[in-house]
Parts: sequence; C-alpha cells; structure tokens
Amino acid sequence: MTIIDSTISRDELETLYYDYANALDDELASWADFFTNDCLYKIVTRENYDRSLPLALMLCEGRGMVLDRVDAIKRVSFYLPRSFRHVISNIRTVKDSGGRLYAQANFVVFESFVEGTMHVFNAGRYFDVIVRQDTTLKFREKICVLDGNLIPGSLIFPI
Amino acid sequence: MTIIDSTISRDELETLYYDYANALDDELASWADFFTNDCLYKIVTRENYDRSLPLALMLCEGRGMVLDRVDAIKRVSFYLPRSFRHVISNIRTVKDSGGRLYAQANFVVFESFVEGTMHVFNAGRYFDVIVRQDTTLKFREKICVLDGNLIPGSLIFPI
Amino acid sequence: MTIIDSTISRDELETLYYDYANALDDELASWADFFTNDCLYKIVTRENYDRSLPLALMLCEGRGMVLDRVDAIKRVSFYLPRSFRHVISNIRTVKDSGGRLYAQANFVVFESFVEGTMHVFNAGRYFDVIVRQDTTLKFREKICVLDGNLIPGSLIFPI
Repeated sequence: MTIIDSTISRDELETLYYDYANALDDELASWADFFTNDCLYKIVTRENYDRSLPLALMLCEGRGMVLDRVDAIKRVSFYLPRSFRHVISNIRTVKDSGGRLYAQANFVVFESFVEGTMHVFNAGRYFDVIVRQDTTLKFREKICVLDGNLIPGSLIFPI
Repeated sequence: MTIIDSTISRDELETLYYDYANALDDELASWADFFTNDCLYKIVTRENYDRSLPLALMLCEGRGMVLDRVDAIKRVSFYLPRSFRHVISNIRTVKDSGGRLYAQANFVVFESFVEGTMHVFNAGRYFDVIVRQDTTLKFREKICVLDGNLIPGSLIFPI
Repeated sequence: MTIIDSTISRDELETLYYDYANALDDELASWADFFTNDCLYKIVTRENYDRSLPLALMLCEGRGMVLDRVDAIKRVSFYLPRSFRHVISNIRTVKDSGGRLYAQANFVVFESFVEGTMHVFNAGRYFDVIVRQDTTLKFREKICVLDGNLIPGSLIFPI
C-alpha cells in the first residue's frame, strides 16, 4: 500500500517521526507529548519480539509512566556526559484500520561522549500505532525492537 | 530535476525502496518480487565501479537467478545467527526517459549477531533503473556499489 | 508545523539536501553551487554550539570562500585515498519567515579507505537557512554541528 492514506500524508507522518527524534535528542521534556494518555511504550530485544516473549527492557503503560521516565532521566543525566542522535528512516505504513495507522520505521542511534568519541549505540525497528487526536498525530503504541543488545549496565534511555 | 516525475511520486518511490529493504531484512522470500523478469542485479566495489571493471561480487541476470540466490541463503542462514538492517536514504531521481526512471539512493547496512554485538556492515549507493509493470514499480536494474570491502570470507547477502 | 510551507514542498526540500550530499561525496566541484553569494557556512562542535562560542572548525563567509575550500581539497585529496558517504535524514522545517526557511536535518558521515575499512566519521545536525534564488533553492546559512570530535590531525572535509 502507499504510505499516504486518506487522512495522513507522508509529509505529516515524517514530521511526526522527526519531531519525535528531535524531542529525544534535544528536548526530552517534550517527549511525553508524542503519546496518547493510554499509550503503550516498550523497548524489547529482537529475540524476545520474534518469540513473543513478554520481557521488556523498558515498559510504559500510559503517558504518566512516560513522564516518570523523563523525570528519572533528568535526575541521572547530570552524571552522564553523553548524548544521542536518532536517525529515523524507512518509514512505512502497513495498515490503516479503524482510525489507527499501523506504521513501521528503522532507527539507528548514535551515542557521543563529551571527550568526542562516538559509535553506533543500537539500531532496530519501530512498530507503531498512530492515531489522530484533535489535529495532532500521537503514538497510541510504540514498540522499539532492538537489533543489538544494550551494553550491560547502561542506563536505558528512550529510543 | 525534482524527484516527482509525471508518473511516479516521491511517496511511491520511497515505498518501493522501504518495502525492498524490509524484504531483505525480514521477508527474504519476497525479495525477488521487486525485480522484473529480465532484471540485472549486481554488487560491485566502488573501485571497480569507478574504473568500469566488469568484476562483480554478486551478479544476477534475470529474476530466476535472484530466486536461486534466495534459496541458497535459506540453506546457509540456519548456520549464521546474524541479521541485517538496511537503512536507505538520499533517494534521488536522475533521469526519466522512455518509461524508465533512473534513480540513486544511499544505503547503510548494520549487521547484528545473536550475542548482541552490532556494527556497520557496509555503506554505498544504489544506481537503479525502475519501470512500472502493471501498477507496480519494479527494478529493471539495480547496481549496488559498496564503499567498503566485504570482510574476507563473509557470505554475500543481498544489499 | 508541517514541513511543507506555502512555497517549498517536502519533495523540493529533500531534493536540495540529497543533491547537496551527492555533490559532497561525488561531485565536489559543484558544492559551491548550493550556496548564495553572501552565505555563511560553519562547522562547529556541539559543545561550542551549545555554549554559543564563536570557535569554528571551518568557516566560510561568502561563496568565494566556499570555492577556495573546494580548490584546497582538490590539491590535497590526491594524497588521501579515502571517500565519504553522507546520509541525511530527519529533515524538518522549523520556521518560515520573510522568504527564509529555517530547516534542520541530521547527518551521518561514513568514511571509507581504499583498503576497504570503513567507520562512522561523524554525525550531527544541520541548522540551515534556505532561500529561493530565481527558481532554485540555496543555502543562505548552513551551520554543521558535530556530535563527535574530529580525529586529531584530520583534514577538514566539508559536511
């Protein structure tokens, strides 16, 4: 199917994803604004996703838990002189049904440390359910499936 | 020239490339569906491409050879606990002539191993000829030009 | 805001960025064509950008200085058997005011050496001011903010 359904254009969809990435990288306080109140946000490994295992590396049920996560990160990030850059690509719509748009995208996250080194932090896929709330698109569901493992002991920042 | 020609929109073009990447990463059985019966598919190094040398790392003349490649990979991938993620970007049309669209794009391929490590496998450019078959876009030609070498001894997965 | 303003479509904007990347990677002689005569081009570190420090790793005030840079690179690149691949993503418009479009984008640059190794050279953000000159879009301002440090002693190629 083409990515432009009857109500959501590719332009609007890309704007949603790129604004979302910008929030993660540079305006974390606004990250929760991209979710509906009854959202489901999960980070899972590819292995667990493929096997439908319930284990999640991060799980937020509802926007309140997303906001809690933002607060937690603010408290610890003082000690963590590093930053992330989210590159989102390959945005595709899969299904458009009952006012919900099912979309997928690839992400690559680059991590930089203050001393100047940088590396690929992780890559993977988003499996998303997008709804329109008033005039704005929001994530009703966002499942982040990681291709690589997280470095053991690393704090989990949102993807 | 602008990427939207009279018959192919950017939306349609991006959908083609992103569905193609999705096939490579997660639905390899459908990879051959993206090619015409008389297709030419090649992977070459940048050096050979720049010098117009005929050496190819992978060569499929016709969709039958593409299908053979899929079978070959299925047989060996049982032993290869690794996966790929194709990020396609910078999609550009170069020429639109005689029902053929000449397009270019950049790709970056990330490789992940089951134990969780991941790295940049390769990057490079696609030089493609796209035609419309009935209502569907297909690759009549796809030349994958690698910026980096393949790791010696690595099996060649499609790009 | 949506990325399509009244005069510049997403298609046109993406074409500008992807043609720009193509010039950097494969047709450096045409790189200066993407700038207005009175352009400002700068490469700065994230730290300096965040602190509004004036230090720049590369600074071109006016298209003449951009052309000088092209000449300088041509002279040295004979000795530098390496190439770059610019992946541009997450293109967003931020403001459209007084005939100027303020846009941002993420970039990742991959570096390849003739012996075949490759790695992430750097990643970061563009902060751009785009104007229409006759029928063509040009960069009036392009600030490249690097997430990572440059490898000490490395020659500075444009981003």
